[in-house]
Amino acid sequence: GAGADNDLYINQAIVFIEDAIQYRSINHRVDSSSLWLYRWYYSRTCQWILSLTITVILALAFIEEPSSLTVTSDVRYRLPAWNPPCGLTESIELLCFLVFVVDVSVKSYLIGWKEFWKNKWLMAYILTLIVYLTDWIVSLSFFCKESVRIRRILRPFFLLQNSSMMKKTLKSINSTLPEMASVLLLLAVHLSLFTMFAMLLFARTKDNQQDKEWVVYFRNLPDSLTSLLVLLTTANNPDVMIPAYSKNRAYSIFFILFTVLGNLFLMNLLTAIIYNQFRGYLLKSVQSSLFRRRLGIRAAFEVLSSLKETPASAQQSCVSTGALLQVLQKAEMDSRCKQAIMRSLKMCSCDQLSAAQFQKLFEELDKDAIKQHPPSPEYPSHYLQKMQLAFGHPYFGYLGNVVALANIISICVVLVMDADKQPSERDDFFLGAINCFFILYYLLEMLLKILAMGLKRYLSYSSNRFDGLLTIILLILEIATFAVYGFPHPGWRPEFMGLLSLWDMVRLVNMLIVFRFLRIIPNMKFMALVVTTLLDLVKNLRAFAGILVVVFYAFAITGIMLFKGAVVPLGNTRYSNFLQGAQKNSRAEFTGSCAPFSIKKVVVLYFKGKNTISWCSTHFQAEVIYCVLYVLSIHLICRWAKIYFVAWWLISSVIWVNLFVALLLENFIHKWDRHCQRESLSDIEYQRTVELMFRDVLEEPTEEELMEKLHQHPHLQLCR
Amino acid sequence: GAGADNDLYINQAIVFIEDAIQYRSINHRVDSSSLWLYRWYYSRTCQWILSLTITVILALAFIEEPSSLTVTSDVRYRLPAWNPPCGLTESIELLCFLVFVVDVSVKSYLIGWKEFWKNKWLMAYILTLIVYLTDWIVSLSFFCKESVRIRRILRPFFLLQNSSMMKKTLKSINSTLPEMASVLLLLAVHLSLFTMFAMLLFARTKDNQQDKEWVVYFRNLPDSLTSLLVLLTTANNPDVMIPAYSKNRAYSIFFILFTVLGNLFLMNLLTAIIYNQFRGYLLKSVQSSLFRRRLGIRAAFEVLSSLKETPASAQQSCVSTGALLQVLQKAEMDSRCKQAIMRSLKMCSCDQLSAAQFQKLFEELDKDAIKQHPPSPEYPSHYLQKMQLAFGHPYFGYLGNVVALANIISICVVLVMDADKQPSERDDFFLGAINCFFILYYLLEMLLKILAMGLKRYLSYSSNRFDGLLTIILLILEIATFAVYGFPHPGWRPEFMGLLSLWDMVRLVNMLIVFRFLRIIPNMKFMALVVTTLLDLVKNLRAFAGILVVVFYAFAITGIMLFKGAVVPLGNTRYSNFLQGAQKNSRAEFTGSCAPFSIKKVVVLYFKGKNTISWCSTHFQAEVIYCVLYVLSIHLICRWAKIYFVAWWLISSVIWVNLFVALLLENFIHKWDRHCQRESLSDIEYQRTVELMFRDVLEEPTEEELMEKLHQHPHLQLCR
Repeated sequence: GAGADNDLYINQAIVFIEDAIQYRSINHRVDSSSLWLYRWYYSRTCQWILSLTITVILALAFIEEPSSLTVTSDVRYRLPAWNPPCGLTESIELLCFLVFVVDVSVKSYLIGWKEFWKNKWLMAYILTLIVYLTDWIVSLSFFCKESVRIRRILRPFFLLQNSSMMKKTLKSINSTLPEMASVLLLLAVHLSLFTMFAMLLFARTKDNQQDKEWVVYFRNLPDSLTSLLVLLTTANNPDVMIPAYSKNRAYSIFFILFTVLGNLFLMNLLTAIIYNQFRGYLLKSVQSSLFRRRLGIRAAFEVLSSLKETPASAQQSCVSTGALLQVLQKAEMDSRCKQAIMRSLKMCSCDQLSAAQFQKLFEELDKDAIKQHPPSPEYPSHYLQKMQLAFGHPYFGYLGNVVALANIISICVVLVMDADKQPSERDDFFLGAINCFFILYYLLEMLLKILAMGLKRYLSYSSNRFDGLLTIILLILEIATFAVYGFPHPGWRPEFMGLLSLWDMVRLVNMLIVFRFLRIIPNMKFMALVVTTLLDLVKNLRAFAGILVVVFYAFAITGIMLFKGAVVPLGNTRYSNFLQGAQKNSRAEFTGSCAPFSIKKVVVLYFKGKNTISWCSTHFQAEVIYCVLYVLSIHLICRWAKIYFVAWWLISSVIWVNLFVALLLENFIHKWDRHCQRESLSDIEYQRTVELMFRDVLEEPTEEELMEKLHQHPHLQLCR
Repeated sequence: GAGADNDLYINQAIVFIEDAIQYRSINHRVDSSSLWLYRWYYSRTCQWILSLTITVILALAFIEEPSSLTVTSDVRYRLPAWNPPCGLTESIELLCFLVFVVDVSVKSYLIGWKEFWKNKWLMAYILTLIVYLTDWIVSLSFFCKESVRIRRILRPFFLLQNSSMMKKTLKSINSTLPEMASVLLLLAVHLSLFTMFAMLLFARTKDNQQDKEWVVYFRNLPDSLTSLLVLLTTANNPDVMIPAYSKNRAYSIFFILFTVLGNLFLMNLLTAIIYNQFRGYLLKSVQSSLFRRRLGIRAAFEVLSSLKETPASAQQSCVSTGALLQVLQKAEMDSRCKQAIMRSLKMCSCDQLSAAQFQKLFEELDKDAIKQHPPSPEYPSHYLQKMQLAFGHPYFGYLGNVVALANIISICVVLVMDADKQPSERDDFFLGAINCFFILYYLLEMLLKILAMGLKRYLSYSSNRFDGLLTIILLILEIATFAVYGFPHPGWRPEFMGLLSLWDMVRLVNMLIVFRFLRIIPNMKFMALVVTTLLDLVKNLRAFAGILVVVFYAFAITGIMLFKGAVVPLGNTRYSNFLQGAQKNSRAEFTGSCAPFSIKKVVVLYFKGKNTISWCSTHFQAEVIYCVLYVLSIHLICRWAKIYFVAWWLISSVIWVNLFVALLLENFIHKWDRHCQRESLSDIEYQRTVELMFRDVLEEPTEEELMEKLHQHPHLQLCR
């Protein structure tokens, strides 16, 4: 009947508006039961369960067989890691697998059969699940003793396919690949030509004393290529040229030319190209997000205008305010936006809304969220008012900063004085007394500020929340210290009692005080700008970070598979042989006496299959690159390891860092421009996303484009 | 009389137009004799003498007392460098000094007394000359035995003040300093807070086995600061965290946080800021160049319009074409521009030129120089025409590339096969025969191309010039080889004869063949784009390179003064003590057995005063940074060296590299945009400068601005 139809239309409108808010595609089924399923699937609970499943399946690697969640990384000291019995991780995997099967079925059903065949991501998802199940069955039939587990490499795919932002970013990266490949090709040509030059230049001579360069770095083609590749990463920079340079200064020209062309020009050109290409694609993807939003709102308008209550005689299609109010009440959206839209709907006295008016109402969604702080309390007493004026003044905050600085300086002085003292000679009295005084001041400051601003206003500033939280933690720590060790007095150096020693307590307090000093940041204008840029960047970087996690995970698992058993703990003959080779070929580290020890450690750290996963997952790429270069400079590694590490260097150092620089440049330049435009508005905090950053340059889609797209909708039949 | 006046006006116009062409300021004296002096001063001969003087005075450092222009850099092997007798370099200096005195007097006279006091560069010039003379007198009175020669540090100033582009660039860099200082301050805060954290975290414990981290890296405040500063440059990257990491994996969080915040965020933020700031200033300086050009042309128009022959009754001021022709003939300018202006002057039939027409005539100066290749010869014979078609076709060039590639591959195969052979086992027959064949092909290719294109057209392409030159050199080398060693035959391995051994000759030929392979570049589209970008960059980079030379020179001289006598050759007790300290404190290099040897070499290389100048001047900064970091990681260096090297790192690595990246980004993005706009025009080569790059965004100065500026001219009294 008409009532059921109307209900369906209302439900459709609700879902379309929710799609618009979340920048989702509207190309899904729109019958009643599908809409229910769609809203259920995108409900918070369901999405939360899905995220949890992905986290669990990724985290499994930390407890699975070659894991190393031990405190120390040193094989000589550490206890064997806990090995879960066969079947435990497998049953968790099965549970996750079932969730993914439900996920993929619901997704496939919702977009419909025709769309399914066009969606490569969904097909890949199903394929991945099939391979996963097969490998799981194989694993169980071998009682978990199988040598290769390919399903582990597949796991990051689940993370990738669940985030539309990550898919979009991946698409952007994919589009810049041709240009990157051109520069990489150029780099390869550069490298190979210079390798040939080097081999001709540093050829073997009759005098064995004279060809040190040849012996160490340019013995054959793979050696020369490696030497120059490592020079490209500047890891072996002065070393590689020193034998030749010491023979004749002119040889340095070769190395200088190579470095200038390769490092200064080609590498930076890569940055320029990635910046140039990526900038365009980021804008494009934001533009398509905007289109999705406008389309969702337009679709909601169209279905609402087909409601039976609308006067059919009207020339233009329009929507009654009542219907819209009904939709708004049921739709899930940010309460601030909802209220703003309701308010403007009430202010607009008209009964019927045209398409343009409808679209305009929802522009609230695109606006920056402006955060307003609650007002200060109004005290009746004249005395209290004066106190409020004094302690609410910025100067009181500056005084607090000065006191914090004084505290830092006093800690620093004590540290410098105590630097070389034996722990038994140390006297904690001075620092204890001073910190006690400072923490009391911090407490007083916090209380006075709360008095002046009122608790609500105080807590509405993030700097105050940071400040207050740290002050309370410091207070608790100080009280605990006094409760266990008594009040400070000269020679205050009691023995170990309770959970932490006094010295550890004092150190912890000092660290927190140093950390608390960061409260000065918002007071320094340029610093505040930089820090907000960085925070924005972190927000916009989530998709990048996700892709990085995917890459890390895949590399870590590959590393485990490649280097499994390459290094075994001390005492084993194979390892000793390995170590002797290492000593012969690689450079010694640290002081001469512990050289074999440190090489061993490095090898143990980098080559042991059991360790690679936690190493790679806890060590950020900047760290890893240099380890890799370090490892590359040790000549003993096998060819596979070389290829693995070169790939890792290219992806994590060259490409990822350049993408990061591009994003940072983009963010900073936009931010800086806006900052220069409105320096005066200081009390307003904007919450900005990548969509909002580009708003000035985005193009609004035209009505024709929207309607054309709507008519192409696979499931929605519009009346007109 | 009127004739003399007219001559003066014509001369003024000539000088103003020359000023406009060279982007010079027109604020100089304009009376007859001053104009003569001005043209003399800016004549090629005078400017060439000035440049030569600057080169000579800068090059003096290479032969002055602590110089090291020896073949080897190793103090153990090298002969003592030639020491010029006292008075030789001093008399050369006096000559240069006299040239500079003439230079500064002429410059000061020409801009006039009033302007002189406003010009800080001129004042600094005079001051520098006074200090220079004083130091020179001191030096002579000590018979060249004085310990400190401050005048050496002053020398690069002469280079700086002579180039207006360098002064402009320096001004731009200067303007970005506040923002850079902010980020550097942020870096300093970051560093000091983390240092305090580190000192609290890695404090001395009672167990001596447990505090390796404290012993090696965080013993006291300077040590900790150095460790983290070096970590910021990623030179000690995995090493610094390994003792702590091996104790507890969680310690790595500290180092990861430090690296991510410092290296990934703050350092790249510096790039973003420099790019953002510098972009604006570069544009601004180009804008002011444009203004100078327009002003010069306008000034020429104004003086020409005051000529007596002009009808005084005309309402608008205007210039007769005759006067302009007279001026053009006498003015020194690019002949292409001159002809183009003459041509348009003749095409314009009018007798009198208005200001706008006058300005428009000179727009030719702003245009890209379009290089046109001369036509191919037209042969009468049908057979020759067919040959011309065949060998002038691009496919013939591609065939040449394929042959060159084949040659490269054959060399590469021989190199791989011969890599491990003893020199006595080597047989040069195969390579000799193959190269002989290939070189004949190259010769044939060159001759056929010349036949098809004609010599003029052939030489008008730079790729052909490159190709032909290398082919001729190869041919000469090959003929010389055959003349000395006879034709190749199996077992072709004669003993050393003549200037070079056969093996060296073959190697040289191979290197040239590898070098010749670069001719493929223009055939690959993207490579060609990249290479032209790089070449453009090199053109625009001259000012940067000049400033870099200034910085290098100053650092090298300071280094000589600071580290003079810090290292003395082997056998001396002081040096042995030094070496023992080095061995104890620093990490050994290369293989274990030659560790003390290599440390010695490093120390000898970097710390010896006699060597610093040539080291710094011949080694590009990318090289030096890593040496510096390397040296920093050796803990024995004194405090002065530390400060010196940190300053060097900041200036040459952080600031200069970022400036370079900014310039490259700017260049590439502009180039890329233009490249995308007109991909079809492939035969036209543009010669582009930094001025032309920005032309689309430059604003033309208005008539009012120009006239206001003209009326402020200190020496020129306009009639109206």
